[in-house]
Amino acid sequence: MPFARVVSFEGVSKDRMDEMNREMESGEPPEGFPPSELVALHDAEAEKSLVIIIFETEDDYKRGDEILDAMPAGDTPGRRTSVAKYNVAARMKS
Amino acid sequence: MPFARVVSFEGVSKDRMDEMNREMESGEPPEGFPPSELVALHDAEAEKSLVIIIFETEDDYKRGDEILDAMPAGDTPGRRTSVAKYNVAARMKS
Repeated sequence: MPFARVVSFEGVSKDRMDEMNREMESGEPPEGFPPSELVALHDAEAEKSLVIIIFETEDDYKRGDEILDAMPAGDTPGRRTSVAKYNVAARMKS
Repeated sequence: MPFARVVSFEGVSKDRMDEMNREMESGEPPEGFPPSELVALHDAEAEKSLVIIIFETEDDYKRGDEILDAMPAGDTPGRRTSVAKYNVAARMKS
């Protein structure tokens, strides 16, 4: 069953979001990072961001979570306000 | 640019989540609902759910938002605690 790591940030300007995206697109994922899917959401007006990373298994979640938790705060979009773990209960496209 | 509607719910038991998923999988989307992608997340322990619907355009978001807002509360997973609109700033698979 897939698991999702959902992290919310505040104080994320449009410039900072653009910069992060350029870095992610041009760089490699951290060493040993498990297969995953990332969706980065941004509310430019409220300067809030929600970053959802979906892992295929709970073991992958655990490994990814450890790597992300060890990341220097300067590598995140803004101030982290919450981090939560969810089951991916459903995915659908219409 | 794609937009995401993120709704959080509380009081969502595993049974209720399973029931919702069966309904969604077996049913049709509401009439006139724009093309979209849904990710339903569930924290069974905290009985919390986060439902993310991604629309391809802001017009699609608007139409989808109106339809979802008009839905009877009994068709939602639990008590809605927040609804927020985000730009989809980045998507990545590794």
